[in-house]
Amino acid sequence: MGENEVEIVEHHVEEEPERNGTRTHSFLESLTPSDREGNSSTQSSHRLLAYSDALISIIATVMILPVAHTKIEDDEELKESLQNLLATKIAVYLMTFLIVTVAWAAHIRLFQVIERIDDCLALLNLACMMLITFLPYTFSLMATFPENILGILLFCSCVIVIGLIQAIIVTYGFSRPFLLNDQIQTSENQGYYKWHILKVILRVPILCFVAIIFSFFFSPMSYVLLAIVIFLPYISQSVKWCYRKAKGQVEESPDSMLFYSFHPNEPLSKERVEAFSDGVYAIVATLLILDICEDNVPDPREVQEKFGGSLIEALQGFGPEFLAYFGSFATVGLLWFVHHSLFLHVTKTSRLMGLLNTFSLAFVGGLPLAYQLTHEFPRNSRNELEAIQISCVIIFFAGIFQMAIWVAALFGERRALHPYVRYAGRDHAFMFAKLALYPSVALGTFLLTCALSQFSAPIFHVMEVTVPFAFLLLRLLVRVGLTLLRLVFSPAKQSASDVPEYEDPRLPFTEMVN
Amino acid sequence: MGENEVEIVEHHVEEEPERNGTRTHSFLESLTPSDREGNSSTQSSHRLLAYSDALISIIATVMILPVAHTKIEDDEELKESLQNLLATKIAVYLMTFLIVTVAWAAHIRLFQVIERIDDCLALLNLACMMLITFLPYTFSLMATFPENILGILLFCSCVIVIGLIQAIIVTYGFSRPFLLNDQIQTSENQGYYKWHILKVILRVPILCFVAIIFSFFFSPMSYVLLAIVIFLPYISQSVKWCYRKAKGQVEESPDSMLFYSFHPNEPLSKERVEAFSDGVYAIVATLLILDICEDNVPDPREVQEKFGGSLIEALQGFGPEFLAYFGSFATVGLLWFVHHSLFLHVTKTSRLMGLLNTFSLAFVGGLPLAYQLTHEFPRNSRNELEAIQISCVIIFFAGIFQMAIWVAALFGERRALHPYVRYAGRDHAFMFAKLALYPSVALGTFLLTCALSQFSAPIFHVMEVTVPFAFLLLRLLVRVGLTLLRLVFSPAKQSASDVPEYEDPRLPFTEMVN
Repeated sequence: MGENEVEIVEHHVEEEPERNGTRTHSFLESLTPSDREGNSSTQSSHRLLAYSDALISIIATVMILPVAHTKIEDDEELKESLQNLLATKIAVYLMTFLIVTVAWAAHIRLFQVIERIDDCLALLNLACMMLITFLPYTFSLMATFPENILGILLFCSCVIVIGLIQAIIVTYGFSRPFLLNDQIQTSENQGYYKWHILKVILRVPILCFVAIIFSFFFSPMSYVLLAIVIFLPYISQSVKWCYRKAKGQVEESPDSMLFYSFHPNEPLSKERVEAFSDGVYAIVATLLILDICEDNVPDPREVQEKFGGSLIEALQGFGPEFLAYFGSFATVGLLWFVHHSLFLHVTKTSRLMGLLNTFSLAFVGGLPLAYQLTHEFPRNSRNELEAIQISCVIIFFAGIFQMAIWVAALFGERRALHPYVRYAGRDHAFMFAKLALYPSVALGTFLLTCALSQFSAPIFHVMEVTVPFAFLLLRLLVRVGLTLLRLVFSPAKQSASDVPEYEDPRLPFTEMVN
Repeated sequence: MGENEVEIVEHHVEEEPERNGTRTHSFLESLTPSDREGNSSTQSSHRLLAYSDALISIIATVMILPVAHTKIEDDEELKESLQNLLATKIAVYLMTFLIVTVAWAAHIRLFQVIERIDDCLALLNLACMMLITFLPYTFSLMATFPENILGILLFCSCVIVIGLIQAIIVTYGFSRPFLLNDQIQTSENQGYYKWHILKVILRVPILCFVAIIFSFFFSPMSYVLLAIVIFLPYISQSVKWCYRKAKGQVEESPDSMLFYSFHPNEPLSKERVEAFSDGVYAIVATLLILDICEDNVPDPREVQEKFGGSLIEALQGFGPEFLAYFGSFATVGLLWFVHHSLFLHVTKTSRLMGLLNTFSLAFVGGLPLAYQLTHEFPRNSRNELEAIQISCVIIFFAGIFQMAIWVAALFGERRALHPYVRYAGRDHAFMFAKLALYPSVALGTFLLTCALSQFSAPIFHVMEVTVPFAFLLLRLLVRVGLTLLRLVFSPAKQSASDVPEYEDPRLPFTEMVN
């Protein structure tokens, strides 16, 4: 045990200078009016990126609103067609979420190359943002009218203009090298970088242009081209990367082209992943209160006529909405809390982790609706059971993808995590417990509601109420669990069958080895 | 001129060490898992505050939605009652905006005292956030049913619980001093700080409790008490401060109680002002696209029946919405850009500047609606003219309050601004031009539409289109203006009558003095 702690301290000392280094670096960047270059128009890009992240996170979740406002009556006849409509809308939501996050990833890539901005770049970026916020609308037009070329035309022109603006930003940045990333700035083959980046960026508008041409005589080909534009670079690189990992080959010169490589290991600004996630969690948490504030303030005249002036009676009808709001706010808030705890210990984000984070966020976006459905149907109806089970499934996947981020960080590079939460780190078990709490509780609730379907609502409510307290007491629970484990393992090596639910079974072993 | 530059450099060197100091300080804070205290549960509060700011900025702007969705028909008879309804809704929006920003200011104050967090504080803060997000709803209930005590009851209970949670956070923080602000941590009279802060925080729940008691027999008294709770500390302190400034008295020992003093000079975290403003600007910029994405995707069946399958014709009806969206996005984006440029040069934020920022943001919140109205009415109708003039007024005030922030920074403490933009700083005129552009353009448009009311729409559209280019060329324009000024002033001191619009007339004088 003592040796183990020494090791942590060593890791620590080992890393301090470098972490100081990055900090100082970002300090230099944030020196506001260009104390570095003496060019008074140069600025740190920090706040521009924060604003862009806020805009993109709102836009990524916008298509959940049409899903939310599809009213489902408890009527078996209408159910079929409504379910189809809902399925379409959910598909549109998920697709726009992915498309917007792809645009966001391109934006991160761009501003990892261009690290400082001036007024001109700030205005160009605003123009780019305006078009990105228009993407969900054009996509949903395209999805609603698949055989009409107008949808493809609008979507493609948006993408083309975004690509062209990005190309202008890159050209502008390379014409003023003090705006660039330090690595590129000091690199000898700046020209090579410039052409590689422009090539990657301009590939998109060109393919979209071809898609527009195809849309006039053979529209299915346009859709294929669009799918290629958006997802192919990621898929092909991921497959290549997995293949290489599986065969154990060393990657060829990882430093040669760090930017625009589409590797799963390509660095991704941790700050921006956090800002984007914060935005999405904040929007999703307040999604229901927006509706409540707008629709659930009763009309004074109606209260007088229908309820004899009794406001309490009038508000009782809104009870399910309030419950749904508090439930979803608490769940989203706690998922944010888990995310926050995880990213406190993440020191480096890769593109793969960003992708897993996106999947987690896409599920989080559906949570308020699932909760709303849960409380909307009459007690013990079949719909209520379904809604509760859907909520559990959504929570489960949102949690599982958060855990996958951690696993990716653990199995990927050693440098992606703070030593405390690596294998045998002193908070490893605690972090595992935090990440495992929601998925395991959601799974448990799901199984229980399958078994005891007539008590599904009470089980779900008990879950909602106990989870926050479980988080408060988690450190205690983990400590008790670890002590129990040690008692079981150390004196006599008995069977490993009664491992507590929240424990990472690997930890005690590594601890015993040390 | 040469002397002037030397002076700037001196200022610079003078300030660098201290600014480095604050940076290093915040670096220490952000060392993630408690490298300072060795307590692994201590964390930087940075991300918790970013998430809180995101939540609060959404909630502050939420009551604009009921205003936005009040459909105004071009019908003179209905106008009276609708205008009354709209006026009520706008009043509710402004009041909730102010109340939420007061809660936000209290939150800043709290987390300026408690600078590091652990899991328990993070969860307590989430609970506090949940109640803050409920404030607008309870307030609008109270405003809709002023004679019903339920509204007062709900609002007061929310405020009471928020106050109690904050008191718990303070008590918890003082029981673990390593969580506190360094200044308090090293201070000798920690106990005094604790009681002063608790006294200020608990004053609010106690007054609310009295308001609840009054509501049972004399409700007007409750409203007076609530007004006292929310605004009195600010008003009384501001009056005292102005009185003291006017009489030229020195403030008594400004260091004795830096926190919870309610002074207009009380420090306000610049980072949080920026985060909150970014959130509000982002929400407001996307307010219209949210509606467009939800309502303006036509139904395939309807398109087939009404427009003979022509999607273009179906979309033409939505033209005004798209124009309003692009116009409001551009205007909000450019106002954000001005805000961003200003805060790049602000080194220290005071409570007075925060208040002026809040007023500016409250006006920005109304912009999308004004733009929507502008495009909704038939050409050359009286309503259209009114809508355009209201838009100009809103832009004018949003811009003027931004400028007031700068003036407050200039006239307040010398340390609040970067030397470049202080009097005689090299970017002073440029900053003035940036801040003055929108108010002067809005004023000009307003006056022009008064004079040439039949051309009001074209004038407004020309304004919308030219302003972004004016921002792009601003540096050039300012330089030309300054050169002209110098030509006018230097050879022969003629009259100062033809000072260009964008110039601060003081600057050339100070330049000549140097």
